[in-house]
Amino acid sequence: MSKTLKIGLFGFGCVGQGLYHVLNNSTGFKADIVKIAVKHPEKERSVSKELITYNKWDILNNPEIDVVVELIDDADEAFLIVSEAIKKGKHVVTANKKLLATHLEELYSLQQQYNVSLLYEASACGSIPIIRSLEEYFDNEELEKVSGIFNGTTNYILTKTIREKLSYAEALSQAQQKGFAESDPTNDVEGFDPKFKAIIIALHAFGLIIKPEDILNLGITTLHDNDINYASEKGYKIKLTPLIQRLPNNQVSVLVAPRFIKEENHLFKVDDEFNGVIVEGKFSGEQFLQGKGAGSYPTGAAVLSDISALSYGYKYEYKKHRQNQRPEFTNDVLLTVYLRYNTVIDLEHIEFENIREKYTGHDYNYIVGEVNLANLLAERDYILKNNLFISLLGDSVKSVNSEIKKATKSTSILNH
Amino acid sequence: MSKTLKIGLFGFGCVGQGLYHVLNNSTGFKADIVKIAVKHPEKERSVSKELITYNKWDILNNPEIDVVVELIDDADEAFLIVSEAIKKGKHVVTANKKLLATHLEELYSLQQQYNVSLLYEASACGSIPIIRSLEEYFDNEELEKVSGIFNGTTNYILTKTIREKLSYAEALSQAQQKGFAESDPTNDVEGFDPKFKAIIIALHAFGLIIKPEDILNLGITTLHDNDINYASEKGYKIKLTPLIQRLPNNQVSVLVAPRFIKEENHLFKVDDEFNGVIVEGKFSGEQFLQGKGAGSYPTGAAVLSDISALSYGYKYEYKKHRQNQRPEFTNDVLLTVYLRYNTVIDLEHIEFENIREKYTGHDYNYIVGEVNLANLLAERDYILKNNLFISLLGDSVKSVNSEIKKATKSTSILNH
Repeated sequence: MSKTLKIGLFGFGCVGQGLYHVLNNSTGFKADIVKIAVKHPEKERSVSKELITYNKWDILNNPEIDVVVELIDDADEAFLIVSEAIKKGKHVVTANKKLLATHLEELYSLQQQYNVSLLYEASACGSIPIIRSLEEYFDNEELEKVSGIFNGTTNYILTKTIREKLSYAEALSQAQQKGFAESDPTNDVEGFDPKFKAIIIALHAFGLIIKPEDILNLGITTLHDNDINYASEKGYKIKLTPLIQRLPNNQVSVLVAPRFIKEENHLFKVDDEFNGVIVEGKFSGEQFLQGKGAGSYPTGAAVLSDISALSYGYKYEYKKHRQNQRPEFTNDVLLTVYLRYNTVIDLEHIEFENIREKYTGHDYNYIVGEVNLANLLAERDYILKNNLFISLLGDSVKSVNSEIKKATKSTSILNH
Repeated sequence: MSKTLKIGLFGFGCVGQGLYHVLNNSTGFKADIVKIAVKHPEKERSVSKELITYNKWDILNNPEIDVVVELIDDADEAFLIVSEAIKKGKHVVTANKKLLATHLEELYSLQQQYNVSLLYEASACGSIPIIRSLEEYFDNEELEKVSGIFNGTTNYILTKTIREKLSYAEALSQAQQKGFAESDPTNDVEGFDPKFKAIIIALHAFGLIIKPEDILNLGITTLHDNDINYASEKGYKIKLTPLIQRLPNNQVSVLVAPRFIKEENHLFKVDDEFNGVIVEGKFSGEQFLQGKGAGSYPTGAAVLSDISALSYGYKYEYKKHRQNQRPEFTNDVLLTVYLRYNTVIDLEHIEFENIREKYTGHDYNYIVGEVNLANLLAERDYILKNNLFISLLGDSVKSVNSEIKKATKSTSILNH
């Protein structure tokens, strides 16, 4: 049963303050924040001075503290804190997706070695209970696909471009004014943040530990008005979507890219700063979850949910990772994309396996066709530098060999 | 860690066969179905004869069997089986909402007394992990409201009435032909099935054990073309929605009734046989979950997920039920409704606290206004017998005293 946990908190920014508020206003659950470690002595804090420390060891060396809650920005410092806490036998709750995605293997091993629990529901899609659902509910289910909108900042910007016909720069500027985008928005708008989340989700959905550099993340920084018009005319919305998909031969591909979304897709209605996740299971069918992906209270509530779970001795079992028939990660898949390009030189870099549409005009040129994901990953820098814009079409990738397989299959049918 | 469970299965209908298939095709999880108890010796079965028994004691008295999975229709017989299994120290998984809703208090006590686990994720909203999410993720969160579409049969029928302009009778007939509605559809179309699910959800969301007879369930059997036209003209869809809502003074109200849904509501897009649930938390905000509410494989997958959880020693903690400040159930709330009525005598039964719209015509009469839920519960039989149709408007109920409170509040503001 439950016991009152003693918490050492690192970071007292947006989420830290949200947690503090949510915890102090929770009727159902009690835990004590014993100490809060912060970086800047010059900042005014809304809490009692005795709670504050500027020395991380005040928390890490305090034997009274059972649980370290890590909510700082700096992923490297966070790794030092989290790994040290684990080594000292403390359970850890974190919302730091970059920390997790860049140190997943080590953090997995450390948990096993020191037999502590590391929970991080708030790291992916805020208050949507996606990790818990994958870990506890879909643990026995062979999943086909997990996709969605994992980043509220870019969704806010993209919603503005389509709904209010703002340019990318105007929409970004508004998002920054409203506090939905940071002054340096790179992490969001270049798709790193949703990629980190996709890495965490790929572990719980498919058992894979994938390095960030092996996964393509295309962002929305090169989105032009022509692309917005193209999408609007066809009735699409533009969303930045991670796509984690099982392929034949027990392979899984992962990518993050803008996508033109049709009205039939659940994600079409996920606008503004909201997040949405679609989980497709072999037997359970398609599940859709939508909620607030960010914000002080929703993220604080997700952190509190993890702390509450710790009080019941909960830890992730990583069941999919422990399975024998774990799938293999691959980038050798075909995607249908829209590419807005400038010159024919661009087409020497982005090689189309087949072309469905080709348009050249005074204003801009585009091609719709199939490309290999590995090709796009290799040419990511070229795409950014040369201001090309790529957007996925359709809801899935396909195996490179699926055409050949289909051909063989139909031949064999003909032969019988 | 996991061990291979030995399962005794009761019932081999749609869900039982779904479970059998899902279990045998699951790569991630192994469990053995040792025996299947069925009722009708004359039916052909797709499994080996040695697996089948017609005697429930072959399972209940078998010490090798750890887990009883109960998937029969008859709720009374199911109660005998489930309570006997619990008394023999066997864990139980069931999908039987009627069993649960009508025996919730006893089944809760039996679990505590015999220290076994009773899991029933498949009983509410099929493959949507709603009970698990409430129990494990929102356990520490003060929830404001849980609403949704918990019944696929009526949603299929209602979707047809609006989309294809079918009458209720035509839509019901199509649903029966397609296997979405039973030959006796009372349980679904009169709203008993979603009420049973609402009772189960109210326990995990608010800690309440409520008797079925204390909750109003209005169904769709009295839906006329005039009502369908009214809804269509206003751009509404009609959905049968349970609504479980927290009120001031730590009270909770529960009801099941048709509702006119606006396009802004998440449930507007939940069509055909799909289910959807909206969970509103004080801090986490609004979460929306959508998935398949029924069907052989989705429900089988939900049952398998419970079996898998048992292999890890999982049991519901009923944290909200154990809290000290458990809310009180009330029917003394005001609802805004559309009432289609026949004569002024009807208005002596359904008393409006205030009237927003009143229409009388050759074809039909309606009133839009506020009524007390307790009044509707008392007049349920009258409503059905006299072919009145009632549909909720808006997304929430309100406290009877909220007007008075507001008035007091504004007075006190004026005084300062």
